[in-house]
Amino acid sequence: MKEQLIEQIMEEVMKKVDVPAPAAGEKKQEKTFCGLTEFVGTGRGDTIGLVIANVDPSVHEAMGLDKKYRSIGIIGDRTGAGPQIMAADEAVKATNTEILKVELARDTKGGAGHGCLIIFGAEDVADARRAVEVALKELDRTFGDVYGNEAGHIELQYTARASYACEKAFNAPIGKSFGLVVGAPAAIGVVLADTVVKAANVDVIGYSSPAQGTSFSNEVILTFSGDSGAVRQALIAAREVGIKLLGTLGSQPVSDTVPYI
Amino acid sequence: MKEQLIEQIMEEVMKKVDVPAPAAGEKKQEKTFCGLTEFVGTGRGDTIGLVIANVDPSVHEAMGLDKKYRSIGIIGDRTGAGPQIMAADEAVKATNTEILKVELARDTKGGAGHGCLIIFGAEDVADARRAVEVALKELDRTFGDVYGNEAGHIELQYTARASYACEKAFNAPIGKSFGLVVGAPAAIGVVLADTVVKAANVDVIGYSSPAQGTSFSNEVILTFSGDSGAVRQALIAAREVGIKLLGTLGSQPVSDTVPYI
Amino acid sequence: MKEQLIEQIMEEVMKKVDVPAPAAGEKKQEKTFCGLTEFVGTGRGDTIGLVIANVDPSVHEAMGLDKKYRSIGIIGDRTGAGPQIMAADEAVKATNTEILKVELARDTKGGAGHGCLIIFGAEDVADARRAVEVALKELDRTFGDVYGNEAGHIELQYTARASYACEKAFNAPIGKSFGLVVGAPAAIGVVLADTVVKAANVDVIGYSSPAQGTSFSNEVILTFSGDSGAVRQALIAAREVGIKLLGTLGSQPVSDTVPYI
Repeated sequence: MKEQLIEQIMEEVMKKVDVPAPAAGEKKQEKTFCGLTEFVGTGRGDTIGLVIANVDPSVHEAMGLDKKYRSIGIIGDRTGAGPQIMAADEAVKATNTEILKVELARDTKGGAGHGCLIIFGAEDVADARRAVEVALKELDRTFGDVYGNEAGHIELQYTARASYACEKAFNAPIGKSFGLVVGAPAAIGVVLADTVVKAANVDVIGYSSPAQGTSFSNEVILTFSGDSGAVRQALIAAREVGIKLLGTLGSQPVSDTVPYI
Repeated sequence: MKEQLIEQIMEEVMKKVDVPAPAAGEKKQEKTFCGLTEFVGTGRGDTIGLVIANVDPSVHEAMGLDKKYRSIGIIGDRTGAGPQIMAADEAVKATNTEILKVELARDTKGGAGHGCLIIFGAEDVADARRAVEVALKELDRTFGDVYGNEAGHIELQYTARASYACEKAFNAPIGKSFGLVVGAPAAIGVVLADTVVKAANVDVIGYSSPAQGTSFSNEVILTFSGDSGAVRQALIAAREVGIKLLGTLGSQPVSDTVPYI
Repeated sequence: MKEQLIEQIMEEVMKKVDVPAPAAGEKKQEKTFCGLTEFVGTGRGDTIGLVIANVDPSVHEAMGLDKKYRSIGIIGDRTGAGPQIMAADEAVKATNTEILKVELARDTKGGAGHGCLIIFGAEDVADARRAVEVALKELDRTFGDVYGNEAGHIELQYTARASYACEKAFNAPIGKSFGLVVGAPAAIGVVLADTVVKAANVDVIGYSSPAQGTSFSNEVILTFSGDSGAVRQALIAAREVGIKLLGTLGSQPVSDTVPYI
């Protein structure tokens, strides 16, 4: 009876308390229909995928979009920028679309990181929709190496061949192996950045910190390229260090999906 | 007895757990006295209203205020910028004051949007106090078309006749009907912006997104003017779309007060 | 038995609910070992202290650090900037180090304020480590006059003799008494700023607000110097006013440690 009571109370509590995601992307049942042609689907991290077949000219202009593309695909979320950008990178490889915008909001539902807004351009709405679908499907994988606890998160991303989303967001050289590490709170990211370049022969592309290159998020981000083996080796070293350091501030950091790197 | 126990525990839990507002402005009992002449009152969204009869010259200068106004009224909050700005707009119409500053903090207690800080200037402190009082009273109405759930919020604002607060914050043309739509996460706001201009014959004033025109909040905001009927029609269309889209990420979005538009 | 049950349930709830710090720095058991030479320790506000004995040249350059210092000490956290900067100020006085960077993230785990990232430079890693150790030890004291409740926080900081961290972060004149007040939501900070300069004969150094001088945090911050007695008198006056004003938005604001000023 006590067990039942506890369960009943927990339900009551959970109803009243909207717990912010401590790290990145809780599991959620996807709703796949809302009656609007603009809606494509949802994914983890409160990600929503949308399309507009024919953007109204006045909004198109206000958004500063390339006139070539009347159709747009939209990926946006509350929690995560890296996972969504890497997912968009796969989408742009797989479809006849272009990345028009990658914008980072200071968000994560009270966490230390970013949410994001990604706009795909297409001449045909079917292409835009396909890009959004591909990106949504990739999210489980790209959230694989995000490890969080109540104090922050670390994130590792890898692609064997960077495409236009990585170029737009991170100046990654197209077609080369590319990696990024994130540490939050930012202090942890500093050590991860140092770990990366000491662990393997990689080229630093950029270093972002709360005051420069982020939207004032509490992250340090290092982006880098190199040969495939070196990039992966650097990421594996950073993961080991990052999990240990973040763990000193709270519980053991865990991934919400399946680690990939 | 079980009911009592549950209630007792819930109280205990709520004491320990400071729940962040998932969307905009929970109900709160206003405290109307704190023993300081600067205090005017409080309102939803953790809004506080204050006055300073005679701002110290060194602070006045550091704040960069117009020297004409020695008295200031202050409206500030944790959750919401639109509702407080629209409330300040009514206040400035009703009183002999001017809007000196509208500043937007990236806040909402971990939500996707803004908090704000609004400064009224007055030659007489009674005018400043009156403006703050009017603004606080308007908040229940101006929060009427803010709909939130655990994933984000949408917001719709309308005035038949924009005044100086709308001009200062949004470049709204004085005296004309004015509307704004907000969608968070920002992806939803893109579709709302497009919906607005397709639903009615309105003129776009501005488009803000996480990287431009917001304080890196996870919102897209469209501001527009037009004839009264068109502005309202556009808002009603956006509301319908916004509630559906935000609902795909969580529970049915609801207003905390009474919808107005 | 009822008491036991309540306790048991509270434990269960607290496990499931990652409560964001409402104000500044909850108590936490420090973990003092993680197997990495870079790790120094942790402190309240999710503060972590780290060192790198020999920063890799490519990261060193990407960070824009002074080439003179190959060793760095790192203090970073989720909750608080003032307490960590004041702690770093003591550390730089006590050691042979320099402050290379003070960066403020918009954070506080969903609260209204900042997290931060502070980099000490040293020629010898032992000095960097010592600086980080001193800073971590100072945190209990420097969090002493941070008072929070569910609606926001106020903060008061005092040093009899400002050093390089206060100079770097706040342009404080070296060697002089220095104080700062923070009010969040920002509206409260406006009144605190005015209170400070009316309460004592102090010189305003700077005024920061959501749109200027903060990372879009929901704070107004006034920094000032003067003779020791005047600075303290100003802070005591601001504390009294701040606790009253913040209290109108929620419960009685409290310090998590022992007030110091």
